[in-house]
Amino acid sequence: MRNKLKIIPLGGVGEIGKNMTVIEYGEDILIVDCGLIFPDEAMPGIDVVIPDMTYLEQHADRIRGMCVTHGHEDHIGAIPYAMQKFRCPIYGTRFTNALIRHKLEEHHITDVTVVDVAPKESVRLGCFAVEFIKTGHSIAGAVAFAIRTPVGTVIHTGDFKIDSTPIDGEPIDINRFAYYGTKGVLALLSDSTNVEHPGFTQSEREIGETFDRCFDKAQGRVIVASFASNVYRLQQVADVAIDHGRFVCFQGRSMEQIVKIAQELGYMHIPPEKIVRVEYLKNIPDHMVCVMTTGSQGEPMSGLTRMANATHKLNVGAGDTVIISASAIPGNERGVARVINALYEKGAEVVYDRMADVHVSGHACRGELRLMLQIIKPKYFIPVHGEARHLRMHANLANEQGVLPENTFLAHNGAVIELTSRKGVMRETVPAGSVMVDGLIDVEDVVLKDRKVLSVDGLVAAVILLDAETGRLLAPVEIYSRGFINMRENEALIGRASELVYEEAKRFEAADKGEYAAIKNQVKSKLKSFLYNETGRTPMILPIVMEV
Amino acid sequence: MRNKLKIIPLGGVGEIGKNMTVIEYGEDILIVDCGLIFPDEAMPGIDVVIPDMTYLEQHADRIRGMCVTHGHEDHIGAIPYAMQKFRCPIYGTRFTNALIRHKLEEHHITDVTVVDVAPKESVRLGCFAVEFIKTGHSIAGAVAFAIRTPVGTVIHTGDFKIDSTPIDGEPIDINRFAYYGTKGVLALLSDSTNVEHPGFTQSEREIGETFDRCFDKAQGRVIVASFASNVYRLQQVADVAIDHGRFVCFQGRSMEQIVKIAQELGYMHIPPEKIVRVEYLKNIPDHMVCVMTTGSQGEPMSGLTRMANATHKLNVGAGDTVIISASAIPGNERGVARVINALYEKGAEVVYDRMADVHVSGHACRGELRLMLQIIKPKYFIPVHGEARHLRMHANLANEQGVLPENTFLAHNGAVIELTSRKGVMRETVPAGSVMVDGLIDVEDVVLKDRKVLSVDGLVAAVILLDAETGRLLAPVEIYSRGFINMRENEALIGRASELVYEEAKRFEAADKGEYAAIKNQVKSKLKSFLYNETGRTPMILPIVMEV
Repeated sequence: MRNKLKIIPLGGVGEIGKNMTVIEYGEDILIVDCGLIFPDEAMPGIDVVIPDMTYLEQHADRIRGMCVTHGHEDHIGAIPYAMQKFRCPIYGTRFTNALIRHKLEEHHITDVTVVDVAPKESVRLGCFAVEFIKTGHSIAGAVAFAIRTPVGTVIHTGDFKIDSTPIDGEPIDINRFAYYGTKGVLALLSDSTNVEHPGFTQSEREIGETFDRCFDKAQGRVIVASFASNVYRLQQVADVAIDHGRFVCFQGRSMEQIVKIAQELGYMHIPPEKIVRVEYLKNIPDHMVCVMTTGSQGEPMSGLTRMANATHKLNVGAGDTVIISASAIPGNERGVARVINALYEKGAEVVYDRMADVHVSGHACRGELRLMLQIIKPKYFIPVHGEARHLRMHANLANEQGVLPENTFLAHNGAVIELTSRKGVMRETVPAGSVMVDGLIDVEDVVLKDRKVLSVDGLVAAVILLDAETGRLLAPVEIYSRGFINMRENEALIGRASELVYEEAKRFEAADKGEYAAIKNQVKSKLKSFLYNETGRTPMILPIVMEV
Repeated sequence: MRNKLKIIPLGGVGEIGKNMTVIEYGEDILIVDCGLIFPDEAMPGIDVVIPDMTYLEQHADRIRGMCVTHGHEDHIGAIPYAMQKFRCPIYGTRFTNALIRHKLEEHHITDVTVVDVAPKESVRLGCFAVEFIKTGHSIAGAVAFAIRTPVGTVIHTGDFKIDSTPIDGEPIDINRFAYYGTKGVLALLSDSTNVEHPGFTQSEREIGETFDRCFDKAQGRVIVASFASNVYRLQQVADVAIDHGRFVCFQGRSMEQIVKIAQELGYMHIPPEKIVRVEYLKNIPDHMVCVMTTGSQGEPMSGLTRMANATHKLNVGAGDTVIISASAIPGNERGVARVINALYEKGAEVVYDRMADVHVSGHACRGELRLMLQIIKPKYFIPVHGEARHLRMHANLANEQGVLPENTFLAHNGAVIELTSRKGVMRETVPAGSVMVDGLIDVEDVVLKDRKVLSVDGLVAAVILLDAETGRLLAPVEIYSRGFINMRENEALIGRASELVYEEAKRFEAADKGEYAAIKNQVKSKLKSFLYNETGRTPMILPIVMEV
């Protein structure tokens, strides 16, 4: 019996983030990407969220390699965690790999094979041959994959846009996509992020004009905030700045690092004599300064936020022009608005996406997605990199372009899509989901639930001291609280709570040990309703019974 | 010496929310609006945030009345709290007052005088005469105020848009604004919400066409989510639904209440035989049903969210069309996206603002704001209802329209703007700020700070039992935790923590009582670093020392 090709998304469908896809045939497993997602407001205290990789741990001996489309966190961020669970060689372009190597070093992981592959080159991994195809995205070194398998060719676009005038002068290699489309493609996995937006994404180059106008008008310093990894944006801003007789200063550790890597690898070209370190800025007149910094998402510790709050050596104020060259990622809107307001309050001019074209997306809009479908003409279609609504709209688009509805798969993480040249089905599932990482270990739901309760009305602990033999109360009940109420200003209330618990706890004396749990629960519920009636709040109640 | 007119914003400048302005001359104080703001993610557990009204409490005997522009929460929400601190008559239009009365009842406040005033009517309050001028907004009964004072006329626009084809057929009374503009206006306070957007806001009527198209296409039930208070929107949807042979069902308590009030007061007109209660829906074929519900902001307990999560008797699924007739308020984007995704996952069609014109704003865009400035030609200009960036842009607009920069006031809450016919200054301040209400009482910053710490890594309590006389340890140290780690799976770790604290706590025996605090701190910091090294987490540490 011939084997089926299996495509198993472990992350990135039904969500934007932690992209990871397993491609499997017979004894061979190939992984595409290994990303993380940042926690949302419902996950207090969590550092990062990564895919559940149980399935890969169980089949570690069959993993032939991991191919990485590009170096954004939602595609490489979970690699260090993966490499603690299984080992395989990693294949990426030079820029992607530079970021991966840096990440592995930070996690003190040294013995992973990371192989540079250039666009148009292929790597053989078990029964798979993977060709790297140049695409365009908001980071250097982004590629798609044409994965030749015994059943047919699978195209995974990675994150892409179709930009005919990119900053690096090397547009997306449409001709290779067309080559595979002409030969016949079994399945297409394609980026769904911008499917809600009609038409084509603007070219990165088009926003150059806006920068030009902003620099023309600027009297004092110009400060540009963007993502550090968007080296095309950095190059573009640097070019305009230097044209306007300004020196450029890359501010912040991640910014400096990326620029160093990009310059070394030839992805950026800025004359070294035009780059100035932040400590020398004070020697340069304001109208000759352009600072590039992070913080376009209003991140609390970022350069821009600290400048806006005057906790940064670059004290931004009247005369300065700040350009926020990014749009807010959903969830970050308030943070970004807060930074803009703070900058305005300090007297700076602020240019942001609502006011001028200072940002373009790195993801294909509906017109481009349609074009990709038209070029590839896949038999099977799996929309990826999208929440439920994106996947559904992208599936509709594919159907309009002629993919049969029964050959279109709206997957969920862990779904196993089995493909032969004749038929595709989705019925099995493998373990999948979110692993929340806080500090050094995973966090379970019950802990997270407690944190949420604690964050709402805090905690009240009542310490009850019993004679171990008689159950008699040995001392007044002590009440402790955190995050509930100002204890000092509510001594009377706390006193009454203590008495209430004392009265209730007297029942320990007459009780058997077997009844202790019930009495404890009774104490808890009495204290809870007392506090609710008095304050309208429902703190977590922690009864502590000590027996001496 | 002649008195100066004082304008004191107590809320609503530098923020969108909790609008409240004090207008003062001699012994007379007039209040405009009294709103609340909903807490953001940095205020866990807080129910609402209201303005600091200390200044008004101090001068309660001079308050002649409160005039309310319209019935949105950010304009009326703090009235019950205000009425607990001082008393004065309240003046509003009939619809506004119906909402205020309802709110006062909910807070069991019965003895407040609430006076209905119709547009074009005036009320005399001390030395002030306040004319109510009809405007347009996303709620019925919205008005602006022309406040005649001994120094000159002050115009407060309230929230407004210029809509020549409103649903109620009564457009904004431009002619009254023009009348005052021609006679001469001392100061204009104007809504800055939409100053970032060029041009004019679309008319409410224009989205009727989109609804028409959606209803044409819909095969099954149509469910429309919007704000309950936007009775024009409800009327419009009901009209289209009835035209398409559907019955309308208003789902949810707030929706039912508002419709009842609006029908009684003549702000809505729906034939009673076309309205159906939710429990009778099962008797009506799907293509004859239109449900209107709340939840357009993705609020967890709202009708739409519960439908999307299948925790509502209306089980939304394949065949249903859901129209979200609102745009996400900043901060709610993720919640709204979550609901849309859940609806898609259940197979429903979803129409939302990114896909079609199913919502228009209730606030004036730049073109309208400019027109208002042009009509009023104020001597002094105070932009209100905006964050820092909005106020600054609106001030720039006023300057372009001829208001002198020195007569333009970028105020902060608590600023006192003193005006005479010749000169305006802003130099004093009165107490102002945010009062956070959680349950029945105010919350202080220290409590809020604790909640934030608790939400990140939880709490660990270590209970140490001492002999009161000797300081000797009477029992092993008990460790309790909430929101930190799964205790059952980490017994070994907890055991070591207990021993560590025990060793440290032995020092109590040799110590004087005076040294206890220092030892307690030492215990705390030892435990903290132990836990951090073991888990990478920094829970709040609560050492509890009990002496017997």
